[in-house]
Amino acid sequence: MDFKAELTRRALLVDKALDSYLPAADAYPSVIHEAIRYSIFAGGKRLRPALVMASACAVGGDENLVLPAACAVEVLHTYSLVHDDLPAMDNDDLRRGKPTCHKKFGEAIAILAGDSMLTMAFALLAGMAGRVMPDRVVQVISEVALAAGTCGLIGGQVVDLLSSENEITKQELEYIHTHKTGALYRASVRAGAILSGASPEQIQNLTAYADNLGLAFQIVDDILDIEGDEEKLGKPVGSDNKNQKATYPALYGLEESRKLARAAGDYALAALNSLGAEAEFLRLLVQFVLSREY
Amino acid sequence: MDFKAELTRRALLVDKALDSYLPAADAYPSVIHEAIRYSIFAGGKRLRPALVMASACAVGGDENLVLPAACAVEVLHTYSLVHDDLPAMDNDDLRRGKPTCHKKFGEAIAILAGDSMLTMAFALLAGMAGRVMPDRVVQVISEVALAAGTCGLIGGQVVDLLSSENEITKQELEYIHTHKTGALYRASVRAGAILSGASPEQIQNLTAYADNLGLAFQIVDDILDIEGDEEKLGKPVGSDNKNQKATYPALYGLEESRKLARAAGDYALAALNSLGAEAEFLRLLVQFVLSREY
Repeated sequence: MDFKAELTRRALLVDKALDSYLPAADAYPSVIHEAIRYSIFAGGKRLRPALVMASACAVGGDENLVLPAACAVEVLHTYSLVHDDLPAMDNDDLRRGKPTCHKKFGEAIAILAGDSMLTMAFALLAGMAGRVMPDRVVQVISEVALAAGTCGLIGGQVVDLLSSENEITKQELEYIHTHKTGALYRASVRAGAILSGASPEQIQNLTAYADNLGLAFQIVDDILDIEGDEEKLGKPVGSDNKNQKATYPALYGLEESRKLARAAGDYALAALNSLGAEAEFLRLLVQFVLSREY
Repeated sequence: MDFKAELTRRALLVDKALDSYLPAADAYPSVIHEAIRYSIFAGGKRLRPALVMASACAVGGDENLVLPAACAVEVLHTYSLVHDDLPAMDNDDLRRGKPTCHKKFGEAIAILAGDSMLTMAFALLAGMAGRVMPDRVVQVISEVALAAGTCGLIGGQVVDLLSSENEITKQELEYIHTHKTGALYRASVRAGAILSGASPEQIQNLTAYADNLGLAFQIVDDILDIEGDEEKLGKPVGSDNKNQKATYPALYGLEESRKLARAAGDYALAALNSLGAEAEFLRLLVQFVLSREY
């Protein structure tokens, strides 16, 4: 399997589906729909949707069946980026090399665009009830809501915000990452599996995979903020340091951070041991995350 | 039936349930949970949850069974108030006579508290799957997501924001109100009915009721902003005028606005004709909305 080709294929499928699910840019009131489309089609790698689809395939499911859920997690992820970028939060002007949503559409519309995308994620999930058993759909909605809430994504963002003002412990750093990044990786993988009727054991293994993949991803992200290529990243390097953000290199040093990332990658691979060739994409993704330059 | 006693009884039930569903104020990270509880327990009338419960009863359902859905719409309503109050939006310092969420906790936490409540609404609905058939739960999640999104609540807020800058037409004013207020009234009533297994005809009648009740409510709200009692309202009167907000009295005059409100009330009552004594609360609510002083 050519991993990058497969990731691109899935990203195109997701983009096409998103284009069909999202209201047209000129639908009344148009400014909010323009802002949503601007944010969603800003060039994301579509890693989370690929995880939903790959997880479905890994347990013998159908990637097309889970496409609305794949879109839902991407829309949810985009909401979190739009709100995190706001002046009251991280106050970022650029995202993937383009003006952030509030820079382009103003703060009020950016807040509302984020709200809309969060809402839309649940609409997309609920809309699956026609083709997937409703009890599975409800379970996935519960898990995604949990992952997005104060015990997940938002909890991580709150501790991240508070940590900019104070010195941070290793426990707090781990909390931020497992919640801010990890929770949605976990929910993505579990959603694909649950919707495809995976066994409890399969779901458990895929959860362990996602948790370690998310950790590896975040550590690599922190490393890239120090030694990455600004052009490839599409954002200024050194911004974590400038913002006094908690990072792995700051707490553990660069060399130890690299070791921690590799160890997390090994754990992620080990969690897939009982799964067959259908889990190939998930295996290659670990390598991709560890070696990525952007 | 003593309407006010019944409304108070339901509000107490809802408050007790909300208290049990919401994370404790000291749950980590505590500031977000404090902000959520501060906003939720700021003295709302709990009209929307009462609508969910009353609608369930009107079709022979059980108000206790739909309690989580009643809480969900109140949590969703509170999120919309917290975000509407933000500096980038209506920039309000007071809400029900108390400092708004961002005044008390800062802008970042207010944005995140709103995000959390929006998320929580869906978690509460999904959590009903244990006691209500999952296909009904999914249908309600779809309807609530639609009501909250850019075709509902958010669409209304966007047009409201844009209208502060320009002169407004009657069509735009109606759009704002049917979307900003009406959509959630409609979703509340439909949620209670759908979860209770109402017939399509019952759901249709209750929808017509909700649409007209919402309209009456909004017109009365506009009138009260002109001639209401500041102390009873818990907010300064004349703020719509100050903010150049679109209102019914501004477009139709006070007398014609009163007529429109009464007509909407009559339509709401007529929509309940086929329902029996179980719909008594819904009938009295029309009178309450038309005569309220706060």
